[in-house]
Order: sequence, then C-alpha cells, then structure tokens
Amino acid sequence: MTYGEDRIYKKIEVIGISSQSIEGAVQAAVSRASQSLEGISWFEVQEVRGHVGPEGKVAEYQVVIKVSFELK
Amino acid sequence: MTYGEDRIYKKIEVIGISSQSIEGAVQAAVSRASQSLEGISWFEVQEVRGHVGPEGKVAEYQVVIKVSFELK
Amino acid sequence: MTYGEDRIYKKIEVIGISSQSIEGAVQAAVSRASQSLEGISWFEVQEVRGHVGPEGKVAEYQVVIKVSFELK
Amino acid sequence: MTYGEDRIYKKIEVIGISSQSIEGAVQAAVSRASQSLEGISWFEVQEVRGHVGPEGKVAEYQVVIKVSFELK
Amino acid sequence: MTYGEDRIYKKIEVIGISSQSIEGAVQAAVSRASQSLEGISWFEVQEVRGHVGPEGKVAEYQVVIKVSFELK
Amino acid sequence: MTYGEDRIYKKIEVIGISSQSIEGAVQAAVSRASQSLEGISWFEVQEVRGHVGPEGKVAEYQVVIKVSFELK
Amino acid sequence: MTYGEDRIYKKIEVIGISSQSIEGAVQAAVSRASQSLEGISWFEVQEVRGHVGPEGKVAEYQVVIKVSFELK
Amino acid sequence: MTYGEDRIYKKIEVIGISSQSIEGAVQAAVSRASQSLEGISWFEVQEVRGHVGPEGKVAEYQVVIKVSFELK
Amino acid sequence: MTYGEDRIYKKIEVIGISSQSIEGAVQAAVSRASQSLEGISWFEVQEVRGHVGPEGKVAEYQVVIKVSFELK
Amino acid sequence: MTYGEDRIYKKIEVIGISSQSIEGAVQAAVSRASQSLEGISWFEVQEVRGHVGPEGKVAEYQVVIKVSFELK
Amino acid sequence: MTYGEDRIYKKIEVIGISSQSIEGAVQAAVSRASQSLEGISWFEVQEVRGHVGPEGKVAEYQVVIKVSFELK
Amino acid sequence: MTYGEDRIYKKIEVIGISSQSIEGAVQAAVSRASQSLEGISWFEVQEVRGHVGPEGKVAEYQVVIKVSFELK
Repeated sequence: MTYGEDRIYKKIEVIGISSQSIEGAVQAAVSRASQSLEGISWFEVQEVRGHVGPEGKVAEYQVVIKVSFELK
Repeated sequence: MTYGEDRIYKKIEVIGISSQSIEGAVQAAVSRASQSLEGISWFEVQEVRGHVGPEGKVAEYQVVIKVSFELK
Repeated sequence: MTYGEDRIYKKIEVIGISSQSIEGAVQAAVSRASQSLEGISWFEVQEVRGHVGPEGKVAEYQVVIKVSFELK
Repeated sequence: MTYGEDRIYKKIEVIGISSQSIEGAVQAAVSRASQSLEGISWFEVQEVRGHVGPEGKVAEYQVVIKVSFELK
Repeated sequence: MTYGEDRIYKKIEVIGISSQSIEGAVQAAVSRASQSLEGISWFEVQEVRGHVGPEGKVAEYQVVIKVSFELK
Repeated sequence: MTYGEDRIYKKIEVIGISSQSIEGAVQAAVSRASQSLEGISWFEVQEVRGHVGPEGKVAEYQVVIKVSFELK
Repeated sequence: MTYGEDRIYKKIEVIGISSQSIEGAVQAAVSRASQSLEGISWFEVQEVRGHVGPEGKVAEYQVVIKVSFELK
Repeated sequence: MTYGEDRIYKKIEVIGISSQSIEGAVQAAVSRASQSLEGISWFEVQEVRGHVGPEGKVAEYQVVIKVSFELK
Repeated sequence: MTYGEDRIYKKIEVIGISSQSIEGAVQAAVSRASQSLEGISWFEVQEVRGHVGPEGKVAEYQVVIKVSFELK
Repeated sequence: MTYGEDRIYKKIEVIGISSQSIEGAVQAAVSRASQSLEGISWFEVQEVRGHVGPEGKVAEYQVVIKVSFELK
Repeated sequence: MTYGEDRIYKKIEVIGISSQSIEGAVQAAVSRASQSLEGISWFEVQEVRGHVGPEGKVAEYQVVIKVSFELK
Repeated sequence: MTYGEDRIYKKIEVIGISSQSIEGAVQAAVSRASQSLEGISWFEVQEVRGHVGPEGKVAEYQVVIKVSFELK
C-alpha cells in the first residue's frame, strides 16, 4: 500500500465472543471475518459487554468491532 | 444457543418504512432482512425520522435499525 | 423538487404531546408547525420522554422533533 | 409541587418489555417501578431494541428508560 | 427466560477495580453486585480508566459498568 | 483509601434544585444523598437545566449529577 | 398547564454573555428571549465557553442554552 | 464588538445545497440566511450528506450548519 | 419513488481516498460502491481524516461515509 | 486579529480546581495556563465534577476545560 | 514503521484557518505543526466552523484537527 | 495531595501500542509519558483499535488514552 494512491475500504460490524478475555473476543471476530474477506487491515472496538452466569461469574465477553478491508 | 460457547454475529444497518407506525417500520425492515439472512436475533433502533406530506400529515416513518445475526 | 438545483432548508425544533402514542405526539407537532410554515418536508425524532400520572400510568408522551422546510 | 422550592429527584434505569409496541414496553416499566417507588414523575427513553423470532417476526420490544421520582 | 413474555430489568452502575486487568475489574464489580442482587444477567462497559503510581506503573484499572438484572 | 487495593463503587443519579445557583443545586443533591448513603466520594455533572418564571426570571436551576460512593 | 392535554412547545437556541458568572449569562439570555416570546417555560444548558482577556482573566462567560416556550 | 459587554446571540439551523462542493453549500446557506437576518457572525458545520445520481455521481452536497447572529 | 410506499434501504460504510480534496474522496467511495450496488441514493459523511507525508503535506484525505441504497 | 488572515491556534486541556465555585475553577485553570502560554484567547468547559468531603459537603469543584491560544 | 513493534504516538489539537477552503485550513494547520514537530503521521477533523463577513460572505474556514506524531 | 487545596492538572493524549494486550498498550503509553512528565496521576481510555496482519491475526492493539498530571 502506498499513501496517496487510490484505495477504497469497506467497514463491517461484527461481534466476537470469548469466555476468557476482551482480546480473545476481538481475535475471534477478526479470525472469522478473515475467512470470507481478504485484506482485513484494522479494527475499532465499538462496545464491550458480556453475559453473567447464575453464580455471578462473567460467562463471556461480547465485543462489537468494526473491521475494515480494502475493496479490490 | 449457550452462553460461553464461541459464536460470531454480524450487524447490518437497514431502514424500514411504514406509513402507519414506528413499529410497522421496524417490522418491515426485519422482515425484508430475514428473506436473505438466516438467524436474525435482535435489532437496535438508531434513528427515527419521516416524511411529511404537503398537507402537514406524516406520510411515512423511516426507522434506521441495526440487525444482528449469527454467522455460521 | 429536483436534486442538484439550489435549495435552502431551515430546521426548527418543536415538542409534540399526546396522551396516546409517540406517533400521535409526532403528528401533533408536525400539524401545528404546518399551520405557520409552508413546505415542511421531513422530521427527525430527537428525544422521547413523558409524564407519569400519580397512579403509575403514562399520562403523556412528549416527543422532541426537528422539522425541516424549504425556504423560498 | 412549586417551582423554586427545594426538591430532590432520583433517576433509575429500567427496561420494559412488550410484544406489542414501544409504548407498551414503556408502560410496563413505569408500572413495575411504581409498585416499589412513590412519586414517579417522568421518564426518558434511552434505547429501543428488540428480539426477533426465528420466522423474522419482532418477538418483543425492549425499551430502556430512565424514571425520575422525588425523594422525600 | 422466554422471549415475548413480560419481564422487567433494572440497570445499576458500579465501578470495579483491579491492579491486574480490565477483565479483573469487570469481574470484581459483577461479583460484588451479585452478593446483594439476584438474577444479574449482563453488563456493559461504560468507561475504562485507572490510577498511575509514582514510578509510572499502572497501579489499578477502574472500570465503570452497567449491570442489568431481572426484577421479580 | 489506598490505590491498588480492591474497592467497589456504585454510582447513582440525582437531581438537585436551587433557586440561587448551579453550585447550590449540586450541594443540595449531594447533601440529600449523604443522608442515606455513607462514603460519597465524588460527583459528575450530567446536565444543567432550569425553570423560567412567568416574568422571564430563572426560577430555579435543576442539575442532574452522578454521585459515587464506596460499597463496603 | 395540565398534563395529558394537547400542548406544543418550540425550542430556540440563544447565547447569553456575562462577565460575572455562568448564571448571569443564563439569566441574560432568558431575559432577552422573554422580551419577544411569551410563555418561556424552561432552558437547557448546551455549552459553556468564554473569552480570556490579555492578562489571563476570564473576560466573559458565553453560555449556549436552549429555551422552550409554548406555542399558542 | 467588545468582549465583556452584554450581547445576546441566536443560533438557527439551515441546510445549504451545492452540486459543486461542501464550501459551496455552506456559502449558499449563509447567503440565504443573511438576506433576512442582520449581523450573522459565524457558522458551525453539523452534518455533511448528499444525494447520489443514478449513474453513481454525487449530484449534490447537503450541508447542515448552525448560523449565529447578534440579537439587537 | 413515492413517499408512503413500502421501501427498504440498506446502509453500508465505505472509505474513499483522494490526494486532492474531501469531495474527491467522497466521489471515489460512491463511484466504487455503485459498481457493485444498484440504486445508491444518498451518503452521509461520518469522519474526515488523512495521512501526512514526511514533508508536512497532506498526502491524502480519507473520508468515511455511509452509503444508502434501496433493496429490491 | 483580523478575520480572513492566516492564524493557527492550539488547544490544550487543563483542569482547574476551586473549593468555591465552577467559575473559580475555570479562572484558576486559565490563570495557571497563562503563566506559561501567551495569547490565550478562549476556553470551553468539557466536564464539571468534584470531590465530596466526609460530611456530605462539596469539598472542591474540578472543571476540565480546553484552552485555545494563537501559535506565533 | 513496522506493525507489531513498539511505538508511541502523541495527539495534539490545532486549529487551521483559510479564507479559501476546508482543505486549505487543514493544510495550514498541518504545515504549522510540522515546523516544530517531526514525524507527523495523520490528522482527524474534529470540527468545521467559520466566520461570516458583514456582507454575508464566508470570510474564513476554521477547522479543528487532531494531529498525531510518533514520540521517539 | 489534599482535596480542597488549589491544584492544576494538564491532560495530554497519547497512543500506546502492544502486540499482546490492551493493558500492555496502556502501560506502554503511560511508561513513555512518565519519562518526560512528572506527577502523572491517572489515565482514561478513549479508543481501542488495532492492526490486523495478513493471516487474520491481530498484529497489535493501539489504545488512545488521556493522561493527566499535576502542573507544579
């Protein structure tokens, strides 16, 4: 990639989930998105939330991210 | 669905329109989205706007929603 | 109206009230605004709030909208 | 109530649910809150979201509101 | 829980603290809240901040979350 | 209080009113809250509004604040 | 005024200025608005800013408020 | 104008349109507003949007601005 | 298009880039989007940013826009 | 200063503190900033918060402001 | 620059002014900042405003940007 | 530090980067800032984003924080 040259990117919004960590949820979402999309370049975290199990334990982190990739 | 298990969701943004009500516009958008997408799970209202006819009547409600569905 | 031609719009902010519904409050505000303004074209909902009566009933919906109309 | 006199209000956040309408969800939340709180005076809608059933029907509206009441 | 049935949730705001991680602070807040509240269902991260010790080390993470639970 | 040690705080939202000043309204809200809550530590102003009397005088300032206190 | 009855309000945005205080700027804006508008009912502070004189003194407070009044 | 002296400003919201540029749309809105208002002093861009023609060309820029002027 | 009739729109988010101008970046994004999508109707600017070359020249404008088109 | 001529400003963020009033905190921050910076021209209030003493008295106002000054 | 390696950036806020265009104001701010800072890498537009001359002409564009540069 | 005494703080914005975790990026930014600034007291996370490597792995976390320190 060279700055100043014409490129177009698209942003999509995905939600990754991990029972371990926020980073795990981000990576899960990026991995899944990269299965069907080439050229994913960066992500932006939009929202961090999660589910709480009956015993007061965080059962999972749900992280909403925007993922950007170049349109060829 | 079981909390704690790996799942990935995608969010898309659609605009439903109804001459009757905000709820009608939401339902219209969800119905159309579910024709081409399986597993739509929830929606979030982003914006409510509308068109006004020449005689000062609300001609239609335009409701922007985000729709989330599981990626299999 | 033709896109690409010069037009100027003005936006004003009004609050409609209805004891029945959010849509009723929007329509009330638009109707009143159209008595003194020609060419109202669209509205955007800014805020939805309301008054609660002593017995826990919603007494009225107060909907803040922006109304846009062409300046001739 | 007289303006200019000392009063203190508290705001709490509740989520009402209705399979019918946004107004129904607001009323449900206000009714439940007024069972344990006296003097609820107004509400403000914060968020409108909902669940979608398997067949693309809006199964319920979930409306997050803030409810304000006077502290005596 | 069944979607479509009447339920009411309440949201409260708590701040958890951990010298280790953001996830630790979230879990601390959720654990404490679940001591006095039954039925906590989910949380939303509102703000992440922290204290810095004299030697430039992050001394603690302070995470503001909203916690939601069903009102029975 | 020592940074790095486990503490949990709760935030509540209250509205103070004063016919004199914004600071008076903040103090009124904090004073009232401290009658029923121990350990109030800080506040954050969320919103400043007020009522206007018939003769164009500001009749009262209504200040919405969040008040935080440690949960023991 | 009776809640539940039809009323329509309009909101306008004005900026008051005072070399003394924020409250002075609010009152200045409300006073001027009430010269040409009847029935001003409440205000909401939008923004607080000000000018600084050459010697590092706050020369004036500029307070942007929205003023609401009933349309008859 | 002298800082520190009493002045009151009003803000109104207008939308300018230009098929050429964002600056053209701003200037169009300011020019039209200055036909009926004296003493316009500054503007703030709120929103930039536009219409797209059938062939994928930007047909016009629609720029929402707030325009401020002194009330004499 | 006739107001009051049922239509559904979808919004996607794209980033256009131009070494010349903000308008150039908007047009680039809209042109590319219209290659694969029919019926693009309007855009909304979300964010304007850019890259700076080593010599302090703006090397390119990166404009994030939302593009809306009718779903047939 | 003449409008239309080239000028560049820089904005910095400072927090002033006063046990007396919001205006006192603003003035404290502006005074301190003007010790090391020439040409401070205006400020914008970003946030108003404060500390509460053990007896429920507001111990101090903490006001976050942005201060702007011309770069020569 | 290689992604994955440790780098730290700082963001500062500057306001550029141009009587011609928004792009001109951005370039003016970036040029001035690069006189005293090495390694400026990107900018983000925060706010676009401007001054209006007595005859209803836009006298200048004032563009608030954040400028980011690597700390060596 | 004693509450109620005059203190002034400054906030700056920095971006830390870590290939490992969000906390690592925060700590990196705080460490670097404390090399040239004394008395850093707290930080606030503004934004979490990151770069994605060609194989769909998160290559680094980029965390924008505001860092506050006392001005002596």
